[in-house]
Amino acid sequence: MSARVASAVRAGIVVTGTEVLTGRVVDRNGPWLAERLRELGVDVAHNIVVGDRPQDVRDALGWLASAGMDLIVTSGGLGPTEDDLTAAVVGEFQGRPSALDEALEGRIWKILEGLMIRWPDLDEEAIRRSNRKQAMVPEGATVLEPVGTAPGLIVPPPASASSGPSVVVLPGPPRELQPMWRAAVETEAFKAATAGATVYRQHMLRLFGIPESEIANTMLQAREAGIDLDALEITTCLRRGEVEVVTRYEPPQQGIYDAFAGLVADRHPRELFSDDGTSVDEQVAELLRSSGRSIATAESCTGGLLAGRLTDLAGSSAYVLGGLVVYSNAAKTALAGVSPELIERTGAVSVEVAEALADGAIAAVGADVGVGITGIAGPGGGTEEKPVGTVCFSVAATDGSRVTRRLVLPGGRFDVRDRSTTVAMHLIRRVLRGEAAG
Amino acid sequence: MSARVASAVRAGIVVTGTEVLTGRVVDRNGPWLAERLRELGVDVAHNIVVGDRPQDVRDALGWLASAGMDLIVTSGGLGPTEDDLTAAVVGEFQGRPSALDEALEGRIWKILEGLMIRWPDLDEEAIRRSNRKQAMVPEGATVLEPVGTAPGLIVPPPASASSGPSVVVLPGPPRELQPMWRAAVETEAFKAATAGATVYRQHMLRLFGIPESEIANTMLQAREAGIDLDALEITTCLRRGEVEVVTRYEPPQQGIYDAFAGLVADRHPRELFSDDGTSVDEQVAELLRSSGRSIATAESCTGGLLAGRLTDLAGSSAYVLGGLVVYSNAAKTALAGVSPELIERTGAVSVEVAEALADGAIAAVGADVGVGITGIAGPGGGTEEKPVGTVCFSVAATDGSRVTRRLVLPGGRFDVRDRSTTVAMHLIRRVLRGEAAG
Repeated sequence: MSARVASAVRAGIVVTGTEVLTGRVVDRNGPWLAERLRELGVDVAHNIVVGDRPQDVRDALGWLASAGMDLIVTSGGLGPTEDDLTAAVVGEFQGRPSALDEALEGRIWKILEGLMIRWPDLDEEAIRRSNRKQAMVPEGATVLEPVGTAPGLIVPPPASASSGPSVVVLPGPPRELQPMWRAAVETEAFKAATAGATVYRQHMLRLFGIPESEIANTMLQAREAGIDLDALEITTCLRRGEVEVVTRYEPPQQGIYDAFAGLVADRHPRELFSDDGTSVDEQVAELLRSSGRSIATAESCTGGLLAGRLTDLAGSSAYVLGGLVVYSNAAKTALAGVSPELIERTGAVSVEVAEALADGAIAAVGADVGVGITGIAGPGGGTEEKPVGTVCFSVAATDGSRVTRRLVLPGGRFDVRDRSTTVAMHLIRRVLRGEAAG
Repeated sequence: MSARVASAVRAGIVVTGTEVLTGRVVDRNGPWLAERLRELGVDVAHNIVVGDRPQDVRDALGWLASAGMDLIVTSGGLGPTEDDLTAAVVGEFQGRPSALDEALEGRIWKILEGLMIRWPDLDEEAIRRSNRKQAMVPEGATVLEPVGTAPGLIVPPPASASSGPSVVVLPGPPRELQPMWRAAVETEAFKAATAGATVYRQHMLRLFGIPESEIANTMLQAREAGIDLDALEITTCLRRGEVEVVTRYEPPQQGIYDAFAGLVADRHPRELFSDDGTSVDEQVAELLRSSGRSIATAESCTGGLLAGRLTDLAGSSAYVLGGLVVYSNAAKTALAGVSPELIERTGAVSVEVAEALADGAIAAVGADVGVGITGIAGPGGGTEEKPVGTVCFSVAATDGSRVTRRLVLPGGRFDVRDRSTTVAMHLIRRVLRGEAAG
């Protein structure tokens, strides 16, 4: 498959930082950069996470260059501390000696003066020392102005070399890297390094409520039906309980993709909930916004994660009125009005209590839609009748519609809590779409 | 620094999956595996994320082998779909032809029969086909029994070769990979591949309320004070608003580490909150558990994320009574009893409203400690007087102690909401430690 749609321009990403390599920080930059590069038609072959050791960074650059990458993007290692060495290593790798750019040093200093107002008791000279190296620029490199305090760089291949990758050097903090990336792609140096990239079309199908192996079967059926899947680059993955099918192809293959997408829709009419890449979160937000309905939550085992997820999107204040975190039985009664007798009779984890929580959420803030979740996230608290992972959901609306489910979700405490928010989002979607029956 | 503590045994990690490479799924395996390997004294040099293309996986294996790795660990690509090819590629790379292990096929089938009860309408034959390849085992490889449906493998170097890395092949889902890893390290094949690893000591210091550059200054002072930092491997990073300083060293260097840690404690007595690696979350949980006090929340801009964070830890039901998500002004009044006049007079984002929310949280469920958060997460809603990122916090206790803060937090909506939960955890810690004054 891959050869069929191999891109003319290939890139590698090098994420530096022992804190990332050892997992104390989750890398948000590599995946984000890969998406941006693919949007530009640049084919990302590798994303390498290395520690702060200069030799390991050099090794990674050397391998990506020898593997024929046209572009290398690095993130991290531009900070003030001793282990921040990326700019120097890249300059040396490209055979371009670095020199102090005094004008840049001045611009960085202006930023630091602003910071020092926030941190009055810092040692000014130490800061000057520890930040001067941020103004060292390899010969012939394009400077990307600092978003935080660290400038980025685009360092071309050695002047002597006839080919070789350009290296885009970016800072580690995502809120610095992302704006700087947008500036980088506008530079002549970047355009020169990525000239000739083919732009592909990419579409995502999202399904909920089937195992990934079912998609494998659907792909087999597509081949048996004579659809030339080899002309498409299809990847499937399970993510937070949903199956995502992402297809990338050259524009002339549109017809083949349409046939494949049509087959998926025919085989999985109930499970296919998104054919335009929109997430269930976005769909729920749009359904609430367009219908003018408001929502409220009453969560036990998820402890506020569903409310947190509903309010992730900007503008959610238009429809999220509020929520209740009813972790204790006392709170279920005091906040959501669940009768102690009911909890006594059915246990705190029951479909009846879930329904009472949904009703209580509506009543507490006068919402149009209420969501109740109660379950056993574990690791303790499971019984034979209600094992760890047992979660009861109810979504009720003031128009009388309601969906209630009892499921046993796989995985550990984190998985059960996270998956529960996904299940709840899909149940909310169904109620808002008037599919509550069944 | 690195050379000084270079380990005898080096490993590389290869995470496969276009969905990971393109960022649709965040890689939790590479960092987790790196931590486990470091605990075993194995030095992780590189973590490579590659797509599902066999050639890219082969390239990554080839480079890590040529870079002298003693061990390679792969994750992903063991599933039933067409793009799951890792086992075959690794077997081929190690020059060990694969054959069907019929006993293993039978054991996998038993698992699938169980699954098919949950998914009655699946095509049995298609499942047999799409899963038979999971029972293909390279010659001489050690089979790791399936946790989900996919077995793992430990594939030794080519029988012909005198050296070369062993490859541990693991599935992608963390809840399958992690238990299988624990089984893998117990095998003879794994022990043979990692024989001779030196075990290092590693300690983490956590600080809150200072910029990372201050640690750089402290390290400079340590050198000036004659502390031989070159004998230590120190990495610093900013994580969710905290500065983490992780030091790794050989046992004989304990004295040097103690001197360095002492200097950090002397220079940053207020900011250093953890010298044993414990997180503020764990400290807050322990303070609540040991004092027998209960806690409740009332959150506006964080929309339940703080309650979600407080209930992340197992056993939190012992002290988390409940919480209020008061996203709308109406909810602030209806649920937390904040007077409309106060909101009218000070605005919904004010220290006064934060204090009223903390008191309202206590009153709502009869907790001992209450937390109130109200702010402007953005992107909209900012004013000149209250820009985006303005967040007001109050933590109150029934013993009369209280801490209230108004801050302007940097970054986008995600950063402001996440950072707000970190600030709140530290304010809770201070109140619980009786440091509310000042």
